[in-house]
Amino acid sequence: MPARVAVDALGGDDAPAAVVRGALDAVASDPDLEVLLVGDPALIGAAARDSERVRVVPAAAAVAQDADPAEAVRADPPPSVAAAARLVRDGEADALVSAGHSGATLAAAVLLVGRAPGVSRPALAAVLPGATGPTVLVDAGANMDATARQLHEFAHLGCAFAEDVLGVRDATCGLLAIGEEPGKGDQRVKEAHALIAADPALRYRGSVEGRDALTSKVDVIVADGFAGNVLLKTCEGTAREAFRRVRAEATGPRAALGGLLLRPALRRVRDDLDPDTYGGAHLLGARGVAVVAHGAARPHGIAQACRYAAEGVRAGLPDRIAARMAALGG
Amino acid sequence: MPARVAVDALGGDDAPAAVVRGALDAVASDPDLEVLLVGDPALIGAAARDSERVRVVPAAAAVAQDADPAEAVRADPPPSVAAAARLVRDGEADALVSAGHSGATLAAAVLLVGRAPGVSRPALAAVLPGATGPTVLVDAGANMDATARQLHEFAHLGCAFAEDVLGVRDATCGLLAIGEEPGKGDQRVKEAHALIAADPALRYRGSVEGRDALTSKVDVIVADGFAGNVLLKTCEGTAREAFRRVRAEATGPRAALGGLLLRPALRRVRDDLDPDTYGGAHLLGARGVAVVAHGAARPHGIAQACRYAAEGVRAGLPDRIAARMAALGG
Repeated sequence: MPARVAVDALGGDDAPAAVVRGALDAVASDPDLEVLLVGDPALIGAAARDSERVRVVPAAAAVAQDADPAEAVRADPPPSVAAAARLVRDGEADALVSAGHSGATLAAAVLLVGRAPGVSRPALAAVLPGATGPTVLVDAGANMDATARQLHEFAHLGCAFAEDVLGVRDATCGLLAIGEEPGKGDQRVKEAHALIAADPALRYRGSVEGRDALTSKVDVIVADGFAGNVLLKTCEGTAREAFRRVRAEATGPRAALGGLLLRPALRRVRDDLDPDTYGGAHLLGARGVAVVAHGAARPHGIAQACRYAAEGVRAGLPDRIAARMAALGG
Repeated sequence: MPARVAVDALGGDDAPAAVVRGALDAVASDPDLEVLLVGDPALIGAAARDSERVRVVPAAAAVAQDADPAEAVRADPPPSVAAAARLVRDGEADALVSAGHSGATLAAAVLLVGRAPGVSRPALAAVLPGATGPTVLVDAGANMDATARQLHEFAHLGCAFAEDVLGVRDATCGLLAIGEEPGKGDQRVKEAHALIAADPALRYRGSVEGRDALTSKVDVIVADGFAGNVLLKTCEGTAREAFRRVRAEATGPRAALGGLLLRPALRRVRDDLDPDTYGGAHLLGARGVAVVAHGAARPHGIAQACRYAAEGVRAGLPDRIAARMAALGG
């Protein structure tokens, strides 16, 4: 059975053009993928009608960047991201992808698709390019003010994702802290450390620090959404700035030649550190698959996000998470 | 009048040898610097007696890495870092430098030297190598669970440091958040945003994100100690890992030659991003100057930390901060 992905065609800096282009590219490259483009048919254009595996579902408008997410997704008529989420809720689609207002995408998934049983707060999973494989960072920015108990849940969500979608075997996890001593951090981290360390179902390796973001010390880094987002964006920004400075410093004929000869290596490292590799972040713990794509996503990023959502569908991610949380509760 | 720096000779991974060597190098390079080496005279050795501007002050032992900081610095006899802090308290030294247990150094400064009037929580100032100049990050890890009011104080501490020690003119500040929208983050960040934005004595530029760590968007990044430490260590770790990967990818004769030709540029960028540039972090808001050096500091790092402490003394940092906080309270 094909994976059916509802794409918010109106969300994103370059929507609808880049979104439609990316979704069509994803369909062209994956014979088992169906896409439902949700938005104004006049804006989506005729290109979308060329494939049997593309359907256009009319919806009014995107959510404005300054809108309140919870209010926006409940508006009538529903904005495009809410209409897409309803398709998942009603079983007409398996996954939701949006590059629009990320808070609205999260709200649509949580409020309209709903939480998986046993999950108190769905969380965003970003994937960092670790030294020896992918590292899941959860929560990457969905939940501010998460409790210690929720951090414990995030550990399970992240390990389920690493194992079931990324194919990591026996995923290990660590708790983001500010020293190697167990649980060094604020009060919440200390409490979460105690909960996670006492859970025999997790392969807990203790504290990890910001400097371990890319070293593959653990497969899953558990953090609250604030610290997790700081880590993610600092990682992206530092890599970008380091390469910018190498370019800026490579002046004069010797260095220019050196840069030319070294370019393939520099490109490989830069591309490896590029946040667009995965096209977005999975929201873990909803009743369906949801991928928050980058607002500035180009067609390539949207296509990646659609493929990435399909991987979650094929892995049966929501069911896997529900089963894992049920075992935890029992 | 020379700057008198009390150095914890027994604190640090390579103490006392690296610490003594670094302190003597600092004295040799700065005719207006006096150093008091605090620790066991037998361990410090005879080299320290070669200069008129070096004194050895006997003290028992360093603080063990697993000790409780507040208890350790109050022990009798006092450990070396506490003995050094007492010299500052008693007016025999102007500054404290330690590469030992950082929590103990903070505790010694706060409990023995004391807080400046108007400062509720002294905070650590790390300096990040921004694109167009230094960027102060405060708090870099001293205070977990800081309140919104304390974050507001950190903004003043950071701006005082940027202007009075680093020579930044009309320092601007931003609050670490997770989106560009004002105050996007947890509850504490929202409250701190309101306090800082309403303060006409600050040049507040709104939210900054992890991706702005090195872009010089603002001169001072305000954060609580947990998120600040995550940002600092992610920055260091990502830069290190990016260069490691470039080296690892630069295989084959073409790339090797390219690496050779580009080496000066790569070195400049790497050195610029090296956390040892400043030798440590100033603790802002104590009644004296205190610099927390890296535990793994080599002699070069210790020498830098001593010079850096002397800069704080010459700038009259504690008095400047006290004056600024008095104006804020009035």
